[in-house]
Amino acid sequence: MKTPVHIAVTGAAGNISYSLLFRLAAGELLGPNQPIVLHLLEITPALGALQGVVMELNDCAYPLLHGIEVTDDPYVAFKAVEHAFLVGARPRSAGMERKDLLTVNAEIFSVQGKALNAAASRNVKVLVTGNPANTNALIALKNAPDLSAANFSAMTRLDHNRALSLLAEKCGVLVEKVNNVVIWGNHSNTQYPDLHHAAVNGKPALELVDNGWFVNDFIPRVQQRGSEVIKARGQSSAASAARAAVDQMKTWTFGTQPGTWVSMGILSDGNPYGIQPGLMYSFPVTVDSGKVNIVNGLPINEFSRKKMQLTEAELIEEKDVIKHLLAV
Amino acid sequence: MKTPVHIAVTGAAGNISYSLLFRLAAGELLGPNQPIVLHLLEITPALGALQGVVMELNDCAYPLLHGIEVTDDPYVAFKAVEHAFLVGARPRSAGMERKDLLTVNAEIFSVQGKALNAAASRNVKVLVTGNPANTNALIALKNAPDLSAANFSAMTRLDHNRALSLLAEKCGVLVEKVNNVVIWGNHSNTQYPDLHHAAVNGKPALELVDNGWFVNDFIPRVQQRGSEVIKARGQSSAASAARAAVDQMKTWTFGTQPGTWVSMGILSDGNPYGIQPGLMYSFPVTVDSGKVNIVNGLPINEFSRKKMQLTEAELIEEKDVIKHLLAV
Repeated sequence: MKTPVHIAVTGAAGNISYSLLFRLAAGELLGPNQPIVLHLLEITPALGALQGVVMELNDCAYPLLHGIEVTDDPYVAFKAVEHAFLVGARPRSAGMERKDLLTVNAEIFSVQGKALNAAASRNVKVLVTGNPANTNALIALKNAPDLSAANFSAMTRLDHNRALSLLAEKCGVLVEKVNNVVIWGNHSNTQYPDLHHAAVNGKPALELVDNGWFVNDFIPRVQQRGSEVIKARGQSSAASAARAAVDQMKTWTFGTQPGTWVSMGILSDGNPYGIQPGLMYSFPVTVDSGKVNIVNGLPINEFSRKKMQLTEAELIEEKDVIKHLLAV
Repeated sequence: MKTPVHIAVTGAAGNISYSLLFRLAAGELLGPNQPIVLHLLEITPALGALQGVVMELNDCAYPLLHGIEVTDDPYVAFKAVEHAFLVGARPRSAGMERKDLLTVNAEIFSVQGKALNAAASRNVKVLVTGNPANTNALIALKNAPDLSAANFSAMTRLDHNRALSLLAEKCGVLVEKVNNVVIWGNHSNTQYPDLHHAAVNGKPALELVDNGWFVNDFIPRVQQRGSEVIKARGQSSAASAARAAVDQMKTWTFGTQPGTWVSMGILSDGNPYGIQPGLMYSFPVTVDSGKVNIVNGLPINEFSRKKMQLTEAELIEEKDVIKHLLAV
């Protein structure tokens, strides 16, 4: 029997985690032969509800689930974990300005960054899902000076999957026939879902759909898909967010398929697309043996360049609001 | 590429289905090489919310999910399906007597039985999860005269899994070291979770735990586990129910492991434990090539006999309330 891998999930009593935890326990991330121990972090008032989730996890009799730690202390939650899903974040409440939202979350993620720095495995993969995900990830990273920037990513896989699915639907093909969409920038409605490099059955996507659909329908629809789901379902995306979190962590751990890439929010060093260094920005990436590489050499036209800069500008602005928490 | 298998889920916009659908689409039931088409049934007023769930299913970009049918017509929902999860049922509302609850659900399941009879694959496996599950399954079965009783089962796998997990916890072992618990009877708080035949690391369970714990703690705890979860979580079991539904359907499809059994609610013919013929009663069963066989020859002591009769009596009473819907 293999040694269990320790996996942390924050906001563990929330809706996304309710979809995520049971998949992790079923082996959806690490496969059917890898036991795991779940480390569940919640704020103190939510520990009672979390106990109910733990009962249900136990009631599933998962053979791979070798233990569950429940805590409100991030230093306990992150102890020796190889994977950390930072799902929990403060949602915007009535009367809260965007700036307040950024600040209150920045405080949460600076504490978690410090705890990861002190307690997690030196190989930990930290995936930030809690919004604003990119800037939260940046704060966590900056508060973990003993870890590498390569230990952190922000989730844009949900946007990536949405883009694949909408393109497949438009072209009337199975989603597996579509690849190499790109989500550039922020996981917000300034993100740029780009089809210039996408292929459908091996053909360039933009030769199959008209440019008007791409610009006026596809882009805003991916950007605002979250709102569309809330409107229909009466609740925000949870199961699809959990799936994307598993997808992103799985790709990060096991690598991309040859000839294709995924989108991930990672720390920009300015190369190769001229995005300001020091932002967590979503790029097309390949992953090999856990190493994430930005796909190089994609031609960027003027339309794309402007869209990429627009979402970059938002990230610069977000970073500016919380800059007092970046100095370690 | 294999031909997709069609799978129906009723109550598709509800909480259990929200946990179930994404697992089916991920391949948790039929494995990573079997494409599926989901047939989602809801009552007309819930079709809008269901559309939100469909968006999220699409947003997951599941390679195995080759199509989704959404309908409020059970004849469409069950067309050519090989597996049917009957999850949807009317919950008890304020002021509703138990008898009214039985009757209103009996009407739903008689319609669904007729539709399965007309439309489903002749090999369909119909798993009833919606409560009162055993009696609902009986009604569906009796309204499907062209199908066999062997096409229907009621879910007691959640109770079975809960029993495994609570015994493992008590003995301080991993759940995989525990087997052969039995859930006898009704999926209700009269069920009899039996440890007389259970083993922990190959040793008889009742030699490892004391009889007082078994009688006064274990039995009522399994019987009332649903309430315990609601109390902690503020909502009824959903993810664990979905997992159990997948487990039961998977065992039914692919068989039991050698030397072990599971619990399933199936039609009693009176053998081998003297349970009244014509009730859907949970027995210990093995499954081989889709054929379900009750485990024969387990010694039943007087304590167990009484418990088995108590839950049998409840099923007789339930059947009596809805008998007008059983005559086809």
